[in-house]
Amino acid sequence: MRISELARRGGLPVATVKYYLREGLLSAGEPTAATQARYGESHVERLLLIRALLGAGGLSIHAARAVLEVVDDPSTSVHDALGAAHHALPPSPGDPPPEQLDRARSLLRRWGWWCDDTSPPLAALAAALHALEAARFDTPDELLDRYADAAAALAEQDVAAVPTGSAAEAVRFVVVGTVLLEPVLLALRRLAQEDVSLRRR
Amino acid sequence: MRISELARRGGLPVATVKYYLREGLLSAGEPTAATQARYGESHVERLLLIRALLGAGGLSIHAARAVLEVVDDPSTSVHDALGAAHHALPPSPGDPPPEQLDRARSLLRRWGWWCDDTSPPLAALAAALHALEAARFDTPDELLDRYADAAAALAEQDVAAVPTGSAAEAVRFVVVGTVLLEPVLLALRRLAQEDVSLRRR
Repeated sequence: MRISELARRGGLPVATVKYYLREGLLSAGEPTAATQARYGESHVERLLLIRALLGAGGLSIHAARAVLEVVDDPSTSVHDALGAAHHALPPSPGDPPPEQLDRARSLLRRWGWWCDDTSPPLAALAAALHALEAARFDTPDELLDRYADAAAALAEQDVAAVPTGSAAEAVRFVVVGTVLLEPVLLALRRLAQEDVSLRRR
Repeated sequence: MRISELARRGGLPVATVKYYLREGLLSAGEPTAATQARYGESHVERLLLIRALLGAGGLSIHAARAVLEVVDDPSTSVHDALGAAHHALPPSPGDPPPEQLDRARSLLRRWGWWCDDTSPPLAALAAALHALEAARFDTPDELLDRYADAAAALAEQDVAAVPTGSAAEAVRFVVVGTVLLEPVLLALRRLAQEDVSLRRR
């Protein structure tokens, strides 16, 4: 198909598709003339994935490129893909205070979770705990235990659901599932809060 | 205390504190001279709350003002506060496609959840489902059931933990807890994924 048809299928203006081509997020089509190229179904799939990462995923072009490089590398293991996705994805907090980083580490030990000390979500947890403390919001261990229980149950099922057919498909599933299921989880927590508070009113 | 001390306690430059005063996020101090005012502990608390909302909460000045108005209104019920917080808070998705809005509504019926049809998290859920579909990521009801179970368990405990002492404190707890516990939940899900994938490697 031509670029105009590709853009239509992806639900995007032609100028945006050309931008993704220039930025290297989308691979070039097969040249058919000096200024024309032919695109296939793989380009449509890729365009939809780019759109999802930049849109709902909230990724920058730079971060999307890093994630797409992981998706494209068939030698990446699922664990390495998770790590790479977590490094690429927002939020990327600044340096949290050492005491909150210590608390985050001690919580992980409390739950028996293993984690690389340079893992971005560890810093993200410490930054989030710091923000809560700055807002004078108490976070006793028992409250965080409940959140950890919910997160662990989801993660167990998330990782078990990773398809084992092809490495590329597994990696895509992990990256997309990490980014795009987060807004689902947050929306559901808020909806559940509304339901519970309405019942108690 | 003077504005310089207030700024120091809040960990912010004096210029930023003056900006919050001009924007009406922070109430004026008690005037002590033509160009000086005295501030109290309530100003420190408020400054820390503003910092948390704009920082970790990711709110715009406009959205923070809307949330603070809810916090300041003692006649607001917890349920109304939740609704106001959910209207003020990002993300505020565009109009999701009607078929995804229908799916979101039917999922809520499946779980027996009550929800106002104009509730922002309902639109957020529909937008998130749309992004997943656009990325060709299957979301069978069974997968969403697991996320709903986790969200319901957290929401039940979130709402039960709301302090009942004063209305203002209850509202502040709901608003801050809604915004600032979300990064905790997302960080924990990613950490739990890393733990599970490391164990399975």
